[in-house]
Amino acid sequence: EQILVSNQQAYFAAAERVEAGDTIVLANGTWRDFELVITGKGRKNAPITVRAEESGKVIFSGQSSLRVGGTYIVVKGLVFRDGYSPRGEVVSFRRSKKDQARNSRMTEIVIDGFSKPDRYESDYWVGLYGSNNRFDHNHLVGKTNKGVTLAVRLDSEESRDNNHRIDHNYFGPRPVLGSNGGETLRIGTSKYSMFTSRTVVENNIFDRCDGEVEIISSKSGANVFRGNLFLRSRGTLTLRHGDDNLVERNVFLGYGKDYTGGIRVINRNQTVRGNYMEGLRGTAFSSALAVMNGVPNSPVNRYVEVSGARIESNTIIDSRRVAFNVGADEERSAAPSDSTFANNLLGGVEGESFLEVYDDISGITFDGNRVLQGGVDDALSGLEAAPTAMERADNGLLYPVDQELSSLGAPRDLMPVKLEEVGVAWYPKPGAGSPFGTSGTVTQVEPGEGTLVTALVAAKAGDVLMLAPGEYIVDRTIPIDKPVTLKAVAADESEESVVLFARPSLFELREGADLQLIGITIDGALAPDSVGNSAIRTTTFPIQSNMQIELDGVTVRNLSVNKSFNVLTLGKSTLADRVSIRNSSFADISGAVVSAAAETEDFGQYNVEYLDIAQSSFSNIGGPIATIYRGGRDESTFGPYVAIANNALANVGKAPTNGSGAAIHLHGVQTARVARNALAESAPLRVVHTVGTPVTAVIGNSFAQTPAPVLEELIFEGAPRVDLEGNTLDGELIP
Amino acid sequence: EQILVSNQQAYFAAAERVEAGDTIVLANGTWRDFELVITGKGRKNAPITVRAEESGKVIFSGQSSLRVGGTYIVVKGLVFRDGYSPRGEVVSFRRSKKDQARNSRMTEIVIDGFSKPDRYESDYWVGLYGSNNRFDHNHLVGKTNKGVTLAVRLDSEESRDNNHRIDHNYFGPRPVLGSNGGETLRIGTSKYSMFTSRTVVENNIFDRCDGEVEIISSKSGANVFRGNLFLRSRGTLTLRHGDDNLVERNVFLGYGKDYTGGIRVINRNQTVRGNYMEGLRGTAFSSALAVMNGVPNSPVNRYVEVSGARIESNTIIDSRRVAFNVGADEERSAAPSDSTFANNLLGGVEGESFLEVYDDISGITFDGNRVLQGGVDDALSGLEAAPTAMERADNGLLYPVDQELSSLGAPRDLMPVKLEEVGVAWYPKPGAGSPFGTSGTVTQVEPGEGTLVTALVAAKAGDVLMLAPGEYIVDRTIPIDKPVTLKAVAADESEESVVLFARPSLFELREGADLQLIGITIDGALAPDSVGNSAIRTTTFPIQSNMQIELDGVTVRNLSVNKSFNVLTLGKSTLADRVSIRNSSFADISGAVVSAAAETEDFGQYNVEYLDIAQSSFSNIGGPIATIYRGGRDESTFGPYVAIANNALANVGKAPTNGSGAAIHLHGVQTARVARNALAESAPLRVVHTVGTPVTAVIGNSFAQTPAPVLEELIFEGAPRVDLEGNTLDGELIP
Ligand SMILES: [Ca+2]
Ligand SMILES: [Ca+2]
Repeated sequence: EQILVSNQQAYFAAAERVEAGDTIVLANGTWRDFELVITGKGRKNAPITVRAEESGKVIFSGQSSLRVGGTYIVVKGLVFRDGYSPRGEVVSFRRSKKDQARNSRMTEIVIDGFSKPDRYESDYWVGLYGSNNRFDHNHLVGKTNKGVTLAVRLDSEESRDNNHRIDHNYFGPRPVLGSNGGETLRIGTSKYSMFTSRTVVENNIFDRCDGEVEIISSKSGANVFRGNLFLRSRGTLTLRHGDDNLVERNVFLGYGKDYTGGIRVINRNQTVRGNYMEGLRGTAFSSALAVMNGVPNSPVNRYVEVSGARIESNTIIDSRRVAFNVGADEERSAAPSDSTFANNLLGGVEGESFLEVYDDISGITFDGNRVLQGGVDDALSGLEAAPTAMERADNGLLYPVDQELSSLGAPRDLMPVKLEEVGVAWYPKPGAGSPFGTSGTVTQVEPGEGTLVTALVAAKAGDVLMLAPGEYIVDRTIPIDKPVTLKAVAADESEESVVLFARPSLFELREGADLQLIGITIDGALAPDSVGNSAIRTTTFPIQSNMQIELDGVTVRNLSVNKSFNVLTLGKSTLADRVSIRNSSFADISGAVVSAAAETEDFGQYNVEYLDIAQSSFSNIGGPIATIYRGGRDESTFGPYVAIANNALANVGKAPTNGSGAAIHLHGVQTARVARNALAESAPLRVVHTVGTPVTAVIGNSFAQTPAPVLEELIFEGAPRVDLEGNTLDGELIP
Repeated sequence: EQILVSNQQAYFAAAERVEAGDTIVLANGTWRDFELVITGKGRKNAPITVRAEESGKVIFSGQSSLRVGGTYIVVKGLVFRDGYSPRGEVVSFRRSKKDQARNSRMTEIVIDGFSKPDRYESDYWVGLYGSNNRFDHNHLVGKTNKGVTLAVRLDSEESRDNNHRIDHNYFGPRPVLGSNGGETLRIGTSKYSMFTSRTVVENNIFDRCDGEVEIISSKSGANVFRGNLFLRSRGTLTLRHGDDNLVERNVFLGYGKDYTGGIRVINRNQTVRGNYMEGLRGTAFSSALAVMNGVPNSPVNRYVEVSGARIESNTIIDSRRVAFNVGADEERSAAPSDSTFANNLLGGVEGESFLEVYDDISGITFDGNRVLQGGVDDALSGLEAAPTAMERADNGLLYPVDQELSSLGAPRDLMPVKLEEVGVAWYPKPGAGSPFGTSGTVTQVEPGEGTLVTALVAAKAGDVLMLAPGEYIVDRTIPIDKPVTLKAVAADESEESVVLFARPSLFELREGADLQLIGITIDGALAPDSVGNSAIRTTTFPIQSNMQIELDGVTVRNLSVNKSFNVLTLGKSTLADRVSIRNSSFADISGAVVSAAAETEDFGQYNVEYLDIAQSSFSNIGGPIATIYRGGRDESTFGPYVAIANNALANVGKAPTNGSGAAIHLHGVQTARVARNALAESAPLRVVHTVGTPVTAVIGNSFAQTPAPVLEELIFEGAPRVDLEGNTLDGELIP
């Protein structure tokens, strides 16, 4: 029987009496606040089906979800967007704890931005329970809140040895979360990792899955990861807990993007063979290949030692790191044993260290590997290293020209899965690129009262507003909820386009905002005396989208009507992918220039991923030019990343209200480069390291009538791990 | 000419050509996002009028505002609600800096809850500029965001000596703001306080204006405050800056409410005469009458010494304090001079100190005063003190029965202004009372999966849900956006109504929430392991309304799946008027019981006004049972107020994740009473004083295998100002 339903009441009536072989057809249209539940006893050749009248034309919006229980049930063709699940999952292979799905399938489901409004309120988009279920040809894009995109749960007996199949899905861009909980796929948890899952993950594409350090976290045994393509995705496929997993014929293409990684190996009897990796830039835990040290007799939630690993016939090329005994320390003292590393083709970056060893590798048998280029640790000097000509084959991958080497590296018949083979044909896969200037519309704005407000309210996403020279008086805080560019038009240097604002803030960044300012002047002379003023700030509502903020050739001055007037303040539950300040000038500001320090709960969260300040001048700034805070002991994020170079700072950070006591304050920043800045009569640079292996370089700076840098380690015992080179203090080289 | 307009375009066309004597009539209906501007040259007998077709039937909603420039303009009968102003003011007596209103009037305007969504984003509701303007018979209720309700500005020459008249307005309830910036009326600022304003404020009612310590802040000279009625309003009429002000024939009725005050006198030649005060409970700065010490040669923004004050013929009865030389310290060393205090009738609270003196009062001439009851400072022993029979006259005020005393105190012909004489007749004035159980609807709820969610979604404001014994399984976080009561029905003690929840939180408090839990059990056994879990928490969106949260006879247990699982978490930009926990029991909780510590920016903001924990038991609690944070140096709030009494604490506060290291952590609390609690094997009580004159009593507690209380002063130099009495440490009395 085929039953067409067009409202929720009709659906639930139909679902009540549905039998094996029946199909419920959801009428085209938007179904708002629909928590669909289907259960029942289908049969192998007579499943129960729930499908869209036409795939892609049935939209679930508002507070909606999908739960499947029973056996042999198929759900097809739904789109979830413009809302979020009120539950812990958007789609779930169980109706309740007691009614888990078996032999069921979800296919051609789209979940697009169906994220909880607060980025730190967690859920799964997909929960896989029960056994023998298939999740295929689905399209999952833009999860912005915390929690794994797809979780396979083993928390009940009937969901172990599950033989689930996850295939031909498009896992589209997942932006940086700025916290733990940004994995795209997780199978199991440490608590149940002694059980086998037997889940097959194959022929999926992971495109820009940048949520956190783990793209896939395998936390159970006997899973298979085969034929997947990882495109420009930060992080790794991690065999975190559980034994006997197989990782074969996957392709990782990093295209030189930061933090792109490959496979991280932990536990027993893992097989990694026939994989291809190119253009990966991760190191340490995010290396193209990382074989970890373990904890002797490790509890399940720590690091089980590697033994019986088979790592064979992989190609790793143009990648920054392959590393053994990663994580070796007093606790993780157990080196790999009974393992082989054979017939791999290994190419690093010319002139850089590539193959690294951090402890004993006598438990690994090396055989038949070839190193094409890149530095090799002495412990691996037995490996054959020689330049080798490579050519790109029809499948788009590189192979040695020399036929004698054809038995090395990834197989010739490897065929990366194509975008058109995954997800659905009827829903577009997202493109990329800068958000600015995309509309092609350039609008002239004249000086005066209210002209800028009018122009910005009328602007569309990607518009550019050209501000003629003169004064722009702004009597309200202008909400920014789209990418927009403000650019000064100046015939010569004497002409300014000056924006004066009469409220505590000029711009309020909201959901969807990106802001680019070029050449304009922001003057705080008309701002009221109100605690917490900030020329640019985020709304106090949480923001799902990651923002980009660029200031180029901008002048900011006279933010001094009260004691803590900032230039840019990023608030709680917001994350900027990038804040970039170049060729700009800041003077007479009582607060901070960039305040990204609102996540004070020490949960490992933070407010900016990349901060880049260059070729700019700062004078008479009461607070720091940058204060970045990431507290706590979590190690799941790559950021924050901070580069501050070639700037001049005079009288910065010395206001009594500057709680950090610093001119630049970096707390828990993972990668920092502070280079060739000139600080005069300022508070010190202050760097505080928390967890992990932060990389900090302080190079070629001059400090005049300014204290020496203050460097602190909160957890690591030993001298601060900072590369200090060529800095001078009142003209004397700092040793 | 009379022009009826029914849309914005028609309005602006009409406004363009309006002339003296014309009236623009706004058609009945809702005008959304309407920023009305009117200017022009009316004449005394031919004003330009903008009015509602029918008063009260023209609603301005969304992002709306009103600006009046020009001369002789009248605006009448508008209602602002369901929105907020996009500008710095809702209604303003200027069109722009250059076009300020003169001889103009706003009357019968209602502004009801037209507050910016974030309580810390400031604005004025009414801005008075220019000269000779009248603001009368308006109704202003429920400002929840920061910023003065009505500000008279003197920041231009044409707005000084303005002769504005503010009369017959209803200033309705303004809830506690939890920050500076909650004044109801301010005239001038310190910057312009050397100028005279000559504003008359008369026959207004201030009903429950509880925003902060100042109800009215007079910061200019030659103002008149006459015939106003202050009802149950916290704080005082403060003559903060400026000289030659007259305060006469006002009535202050506190009805015994906390922090109700009268008049605070600073500066030169202030006259305070014929006022009536009854039932006021404020002390110090909020006394019924406080005469301050000044700073010698004070700058305008500090405290100018009192000289030439005339304080005569006032009645102060059943009030806690009349104080002289208030604020005397090293800086404020200048006592009042050349002043008189005569013919006042003064009645304190029997058995309590009442008339107090903190420095030299030789500069005040006392004459003809009579003290009815209450303690009198030795320095005032010359005052005649004798019990005096009083009777209530027809005007509702108390007068001496003895006719010989008829020349003392407030005049017989004083007639408090009535509610029906202020504001408008066509818009109701708000009532009072508890938000709980008001609807009269009581609904039975049965145990099971989802039953509680269904019942709560269906509930209306003020409903009571009766939970039958059994287990309630909740699969989502339940939003609470209205007052609601959950009450367990139990035949005997063995029966429990247990709520188990499968999400990081059970209840999310949103705009409009009040929550009362009676007798139910909350069990965290099903909650997921997610950082920042909290059984009850506020939404991450800001909340305008102040909440009430009551737990009575509640059991909370097993909040332990991760390291920081709280019972109640109040987040940024939210304020609970009251959190009350009684007869309840808490066990096995990894985080805090009440966390009200989200305002970490040290702007003097905080999350709970009254916290009351009594007759409850706490065992195995990782965090503190209460952590309250109010940082910074601002002195504009009465709260937080904390009372913790008769509780038993065992193994509380000792988790390594408890950042405060305390079992009870009070930072910047203004009034605290910690009494008769038994603490065993717990972390210490920790009290940190910041600004002002905090009142802390730690009385009759026993500490067993628990460190002694940790008491700290951040600013005050000297021993911690804590009343420590009758506490024992392992059985020994703490000295
Ligand atoms: Ca993780
Ligand atoms: Ca104040």
